Amino acid sequence: MKFSDLGEKEIVRRIDGILNAMDLNVGDDAAVLEIDDEFLVASTDIFYEETHKLPGMTYEQIAKYVVASNFSDIAAMGAKPVALLVAFGCKDMEISDFENLITSIAIECKRYDAKFIGGDTKYSGNLVIVGTAIGKTKKPVFRSGANVNDIVAVTGTLGDAGLGVRLLMENLIDSDSCKESEVIRKALEPLARVNEAQIIGRFATSMTDISDSLAFSLYDIAEKSGVGFEIYPERFPISKNAIELAREFKFNISEFALYTGGDYELLFTIQEDNFNEVKDEINATEIGRVIKKGIFSVKNGKREIIKKRGYEHFKTKNKKGFIFI
Amino acid sequence: MKFSDLGEKEIVRRIDGILNAMDLNVGDDAAVLEIDDEFLVASTDIFYEETHKLPGMTYEQIAKYVVASNFSDIAAMGAKPVALLVAFGCKDMEISDFENLITSIAIECKRYDAKFIGGDTKYSGNLVIVGTAIGKTKKPVFRSGANVNDIVAVTGTLGDAGLGVRLLMENLIDSDSCKESEVIRKALEPLARVNEAQIIGRFATSMTDISDSLAFSLYDIAEKSGVGFEIYPERFPISKNAIELAREFKFNISEFALYTGGDYELLFTIQEDNFNEVKDEINATEIGRVIKKGIFSVKNGKREIIKKRGYEHFKTKNKKGFIFI
Repeated sequence: MKFSDLGEKEIVRRIDGILNAMDLNVGDDAAVLEIDDEFLVASTDIFYEETHKLPGMTYEQIAKYVVASNFSDIAAMGAKPVALLVAFGCKDMEISDFENLITSIAIECKRYDAKFIGGDTKYSGNLVIVGTAIGKTKKPVFRSGANVNDIVAVTGTLGDAGLGVRLLMENLIDSDSCKESEVIRKALEPLARVNEAQIIGRFATSMTDISDSLAFSLYDIAEKSGVGFEIYPERFPISKNAIELAREFKFNISEFALYTGGDYELLFTIQEDNFNEVKDEINATEIGRVIKKGIFSVKNGKREIIKKRGYEHFKTKNKKGFIFI
Repeated sequence: MKFSDLGEKEIVRRIDGILNAMDLNVGDDAAVLEIDDEFLVASTDIFYEETHKLPGMTYEQIAKYVVASNFSDIAAMGAKPVALLVAFGCKDMEISDFENLITSIAIECKRYDAKFIGGDTKYSGNLVIVGTAIGKTKKPVFRSGANVNDIVAVTGTLGDAGLGVRLLMENLIDSDSCKESEVIRKALEPLARVNEAQIIGRFATSMTDISDSLAFSLYDIAEKSGVGFEIYPERFPISKNAIELAREFKFNISEFALYTGGDYELLFTIQEDNFNEVKDEINATEIGRVIKKGIFSVKNGKREIIKKRGYEHFKTKNKKGFIFI
């Protein structure tokens, strides 16, 4: 049996099985190590040119993507990024492009007040960039702590990146429109919610990022916490730009919000009174409630099961592996 | 100008230049972060199937190689490995092979009393395995502390791995001979000198591993410490098996000891009285002295410049990038 028969989520489930049997499982955005009275948080993330590079993506944008995707996993644990190591598997590329990439990664790390502490460079047939982020926190937030009646909330807006990727891949919009379009910017130049995570982390009962899709992340927290969700798509925070573009190209933006990956927003559960405190400090929106069982969307009083669907490597059929709604 | 015009060492020199300019340079086996009253040490290393996989290498052996090469960098800082993250860029491989790989990596981590704390799995055209090791120490040992008149010493024996790689790649010996041949075992199943590093680390003035070649490592320490070396090849610790095989196939084993990579031994400098204490506890051999300037071998009273030569990606002409003596 091969990878393509299973898909990424089932492969990860199998790895989980092996690590569980060896009492080694992480099962969260990042691994946690206790060192003295602090927790060290570490996570690794692959950027593979062939599958991750979007049309028109520059080396500066690749750097932004690599740093954001790695630090988002650290943020999702309620931790502060401290350092990033990057291993480059390089094709025989232009040195000036590589220097641009390195410099941009270092600049992006500074944006998050973290250090780019080098890595490894080797030959590879295609450009592969593997970042490993290290962070620290006094109190890690896991996927496993959600309680029935908690509020379900997200940072920022939903569906932008997924819509942006779709528009770029179908050549419906140009990558140069990054400056005017929030949707294209979020697809090509994602930012990790590092500052927000510090504030949310003080109160959240569970947290994860939604880089593979909101739906996948809901299923993850539900499974790890032993709870269910009732989600209200009408409350989804959608950017003005996403609403306009979805209308123009006749896409259902709620479906993008639920099922496409690439939004480096945080999904968290939190007690109602704590949520009000958090909301005063950051942009976060209540999108549902924790219930006992099942993962439903509720719209016009109608309950529907949310599908376990999102960005999944190995399984999705089109070349880039992106889910098309 | 492309990567192949420069070679790995020159590329690394350029990266160093960029990071130096941004005050971010590591310039050592691993990066060091001060956390509370301890030092966290982190390093990342790429295994790329196309260039690193030796003929006959099994998934268990790939796992051994990945763990050893990563923990060797931690050991070279005088630190103790704590955890390993691994990112897998996978082709569409057999699930059973992948499960074997994961399990073997977890077992190897346990050998070094460290934890395999998961990672990332994505599609890639060829198998790419990027390990990131985290370790800790109260006192990191850098490449920059060597003093004139210090003893230069190495752990274990030299040249085995380089000779083993050569014999395997030219089909002069079979990978199954791993059990009987120290030389083949060190090529296919390297071990990191983690325990030795703890003992050496208490006294060493500088340390690095010699995975890219003893010659490269001498140049590294010389440059970082502002010193030179006088090396006595007649004192090189060579295994009985290496002597026999080199004789049989008419190879100059001293040249392998100096210029081939793959030996995960430690090179260190140390004061003479401290060296005697270290030598009581571990297998280490004096191979030279720190001098003011220049990197020489001295044989039969004749001084020759040691070439800056070793395993170097991008530049070496044969497919696998290995240096052939």
